[in-house]
Amino acid sequence: MKVGFIGLGRMGEGMAANLLKAGHEITVYNRTLAKAAPLAAQGAKVAAKVAEACQGDAVITMLANDEAVSGVVFGDGGIVACLRPGAIHISSSTIGTAFSGKLTAAHASAGQRFLAAPVFGRPEVAAKGQLFVVAGGEPDTVKAAQPLLDAMGQKTFVISQAPKDANLVKLSGNFLIAAVIESLGEAMALVAKAGVSKHQYLEILTSTLFTAPVYKTYGTLIADGAFEPAGFAATLGQKDIRLTLAAAEELRVPLPLASLLRDRFLALLAHGGDNLDWSAIGALSAKEAGLDNA
Amino acid sequence: MKVGFIGLGRMGEGMAANLLKAGHEITVYNRTLAKAAPLAAQGAKVAAKVAEACQGDAVITMLANDEAVSGVVFGDGGIVACLRPGAIHISSSTIGTAFSGKLTAAHASAGQRFLAAPVFGRPEVAAKGQLFVVAGGEPDTVKAAQPLLDAMGQKTFVISQAPKDANLVKLSGNFLIAAVIESLGEAMALVAKAGVSKHQYLEILTSTLFTAPVYKTYGTLIADGAFEPAGFAATLGQKDIRLTLAAAEELRVPLPLASLLRDRFLALLAHGGDNLDWSAIGALSAKEAGLDNA
Amino acid sequence: MKVGFIGLGRMGEGMAANLLKAGHEITVYNRTLAKAAPLAAQGAKVAAKVAEACQGDAVITMLANDEAVSGVVFGDGGIVACLRPGAIHISSSTIGTAFSGKLTAAHASAGQRFLAAPVFGRPEVAAKGQLFVVAGGEPDTVKAAQPLLDAMGQKTFVISQAPKDANLVKLSGNFLIAAVIESLGEAMALVAKAGVSKHQYLEILTSTLFTAPVYKTYGTLIADGAFEPAGFAATLGQKDIRLTLAAAEELRVPLPLASLLRDRFLALLAHGGDNLDWSAIGALSAKEAGLDNA
Amino acid sequence: MKVGFIGLGRMGEGMAANLLKAGHEITVYNRTLAKAAPLAAQGAKVAAKVAEACQGDAVITMLANDEAVSGVVFGDGGIVACLRPGAIHISSSTIGTAFSGKLTAAHASAGQRFLAAPVFGRPEVAAKGQLFVVAGGEPDTVKAAQPLLDAMGQKTFVISQAPKDANLVKLSGNFLIAAVIESLGEAMALVAKAGVSKHQYLEILTSTLFTAPVYKTYGTLIADGAFEPAGFAATLGQKDIRLTLAAAEELRVPLPLASLLRDRFLALLAHGGDNLDWSAIGALSAKEAGLDNA
Repeated sequence: MKVGFIGLGRMGEGMAANLLKAGHEITVYNRTLAKAAPLAAQGAKVAAKVAEACQGDAVITMLANDEAVSGVVFGDGGIVACLRPGAIHISSSTIGTAFSGKLTAAHASAGQRFLAAPVFGRPEVAAKGQLFVVAGGEPDTVKAAQPLLDAMGQKTFVISQAPKDANLVKLSGNFLIAAVIESLGEAMALVAKAGVSKHQYLEILTSTLFTAPVYKTYGTLIADGAFEPAGFAATLGQKDIRLTLAAAEELRVPLPLASLLRDRFLALLAHGGDNLDWSAIGALSAKEAGLDNA
Repeated sequence: MKVGFIGLGRMGEGMAANLLKAGHEITVYNRTLAKAAPLAAQGAKVAAKVAEACQGDAVITMLANDEAVSGVVFGDGGIVACLRPGAIHISSSTIGTAFSGKLTAAHASAGQRFLAAPVFGRPEVAAKGQLFVVAGGEPDTVKAAQPLLDAMGQKTFVISQAPKDANLVKLSGNFLIAAVIESLGEAMALVAKAGVSKHQYLEILTSTLFTAPVYKTYGTLIADGAFEPAGFAATLGQKDIRLTLAAAEELRVPLPLASLLRDRFLALLAHGGDNLDWSAIGALSAKEAGLDNA
Repeated sequence: MKVGFIGLGRMGEGMAANLLKAGHEITVYNRTLAKAAPLAAQGAKVAAKVAEACQGDAVITMLANDEAVSGVVFGDGGIVACLRPGAIHISSSTIGTAFSGKLTAAHASAGQRFLAAPVFGRPEVAAKGQLFVVAGGEPDTVKAAQPLLDAMGQKTFVISQAPKDANLVKLSGNFLIAAVIESLGEAMALVAKAGVSKHQYLEILTSTLFTAPVYKTYGTLIADGAFEPAGFAATLGQKDIRLTLAAAEELRVPLPLASLLRDRFLALLAHGGDNLDWSAIGALSAKEAGLDNA
Repeated sequence: MKVGFIGLGRMGEGMAANLLKAGHEITVYNRTLAKAAPLAAQGAKVAAKVAEACQGDAVITMLANDEAVSGVVFGDGGIVACLRPGAIHISSSTIGTAFSGKLTAAHASAGQRFLAAPVFGRPEVAAKGQLFVVAGGEPDTVKAAQPLLDAMGQKTFVISQAPKDANLVKLSGNFLIAAVIESLGEAMALVAKAGVSKHQYLEILTSTLFTAPVYKTYGTLIADGAFEPAGFAATLGQKDIRLTLAAAEELRVPLPLASLLRDRFLALLAHGGDNLDWSAIGALSAKEAGLDNA
């Protein structure tokens, strides 16, 4: 297939590379052009403008937030203006449900198709083409996009015909991860203040009941206090909890744990934590408990 | 070794049976005598009084809460009064840290040894001798008790010389599980109100990021709304969160997520949920969100 | 002064009447024209369009929310398009700080002046001209508007040169009232479940430490369970907490109590409470506690 | 009446003095004997032992917590052992409901009468005999004690025949005050971070909607950051929230705002705030928001 790919961050880079490997004809676009060089070396065409990435069967966006996606979708030379009727915009970014609904409507008005296909997995997983894809869209749209999703991920879960439901599932997944971070942060502050080794404690947890990698990954970051460089920045974590709460507000679902996480992120950002890994909220309990080297 | 075993509930039954299989000489005691019959058939002696279970090298207690343990430890004919000097009381119950400290002091005054050895695992794991044991006590006490711990569990983690630290680790583990339940309850209420299938959602979670069995086990109970019969009763969950908060108060560690769980359990019990599985707190978010069949 | 007044709800009606009494020349506009009749009888001109209310020295808006204000301010025939340079838009609505900033900028670009002047007080207080006004704007703008503010309120507090600060103070005031409601709801659920009379309890509170009218007013509503008709609707309360949290997010200030209130309002709305008085969140604690007639 | 008075702290001193002024025959006891000197000068007899204060018609206790009351009530030479049958123990301390129930039962077993009569008011109010008394006990007991309550307070509210209900009302009142402190702390952090003066803000609040003295008193302490010397120590505030939560747990009433306050007090104590005024929890929001001079 002939596909545009917009957004060559740490995730997008690997995803685009896997599309190339699978034999698709890829035109990449990135605001900072230099990031396109490695992909050009692998055979990608490089677009100077968004419009140039919208000439094929589909265009995939993998950007930081609603604002960034909005910037390439709307306006002169944007995706809505340039994509041919019937072509598909596949949005893999973690965006809000209300904005996803807006994209759905805009593409429908323009005779284009829209598929929300957010992904689970960190950059190294994206590089291996082993992401999990959560897809929301019309059945024929999903079917048409499947070869692309298969190139980027190990499995696709089709969740709903409404794109925004896929975005909701993605947001809720990040909420669940943040909940793991908070619970570990509280538990580790508790045992550490009693004098128990955080590392030994974590070993007990992860070799018994909490064998999922998220416990190991984030527990180690908290135990080590190693929040730089960020694998996933606190500002992005804060954004995702905000979007989760916004979706919950629209649906009228109280989420007290998400509200707690919201305040944790704000406290972290209020103390200059923008560029720390989002797991740094897991150090706040120890700080509140008066532990020195937390 | 010659050992007494007090408390033949669903956990204790399997633990005592594994001690017998390992060749130890076991005298069992249970308030309701009838529960001792299966173990008698496997070769255990049956004690009519607590004192009769305190004639050997060690006595193991596996009871529901602080009050039950207190009832067999103190007073005439209790463990402190009857255990010989140098013998070991191994407490595997999930008890509070303050009470654990009290037991430590009482046994020390009586010239006896005390080992806190709470366990992770549900009844079916106990039956297989595959529990994880978290031990706190003097090194020589741990060493002397090791053959018994090995008979009941697949691995022992020695956490501290202070018994109460082992109890703290156990309590914090139950807090972490309750946190998983709450986070799943909120996330599932959110996606369910949007119309997403709870079962499909759970399948996505457990086949991607949340592969630990606790997510599968408790997520399924919440998705099915299947809280009876209780694998672990809500009253016990409430007790463990209370003991976690009590330990945190003594150590001066704020635990906002544990506080949230406390209120969840009280709301559940206020509506007659005493005998439901503790995962029933995971249905409260859906109820708050106005979902009918949650 | 020659003044337009837009928004003749329960608050605006009394405010406009007091402007007339003070001798100002008032042109009123309301989406539902019929509401203007009583004011016409008192001497007001009635505008058929927003533009007709923008021909004088100032125009005052008193509307339900950001969206309603936006609807009369922007677009063809809106306030920005029609108000003469140098004239003042006085916004008395309870709006968000971000939106207030947007209004400030829009009027500045059009050469007009903008004053945020939200008010404290219920409709009966507005009718008496006894409101408290919190003003934010340039000193000369405040000075020019003072005769109008004096006609509507008993006192003006000039808080800042930035209009949005006045809106923040207003929002925070509503947050404080909602906090009173929540605290009363919890305390009354607690003593009521012990069997203490809610009315006697309230009498004790309000005749000793909690003599402020808010305790009496809202405590009585909760004790009586009398939430209809709404003095201030739950949807408006939810909106104000949302705007408070939005302002706090922009400023990076964690507000755990406001987060709790957010969830209370969502739970109320999820159960059909849109048209109840906002004090109905004060009945949720009793409901959680399993009290029947709460 | 012939009355013993035990506990000459800042509150008890004034209460005992007013009993003397009213013409009662008072025997005072205090652990630190020196504190009795001013009262001896006013005509009180000074007891060297608790027992000597238990020879009359009634004995009043005004002590810091359950433990202190327990210390003078139980054991050889304690109130239960020494008070004559039919005489009354009036407990004015802020104690827990479970402990109040224990006192009720102990005195009943000994043929004595028990009245819970906790008070609202700070030391300067106690000195003027203007306290508010909340009484719980049998009607004839209340009647018999009334002359004493009248000497100490301006009004008595008889809440229930069960003494512990009076203690619950007192605890809930302290919870409501702490809720005011928390809400002010959050609101002031919010407006202060926007640049609004905390003192001006407080003036607006207290001259409009929040005219109750608690807002003025605690708001000023927070705005000034003046938490020493403590009018009411943080450790006592923490104790009262703990007892409120304990009563709520027994009654199965979720209290999320009280849970939040619990964590605030623990965070304060974890940072060495034991001797600060309890309103110091109102500075924690500003600290979390990253405000420097909070």
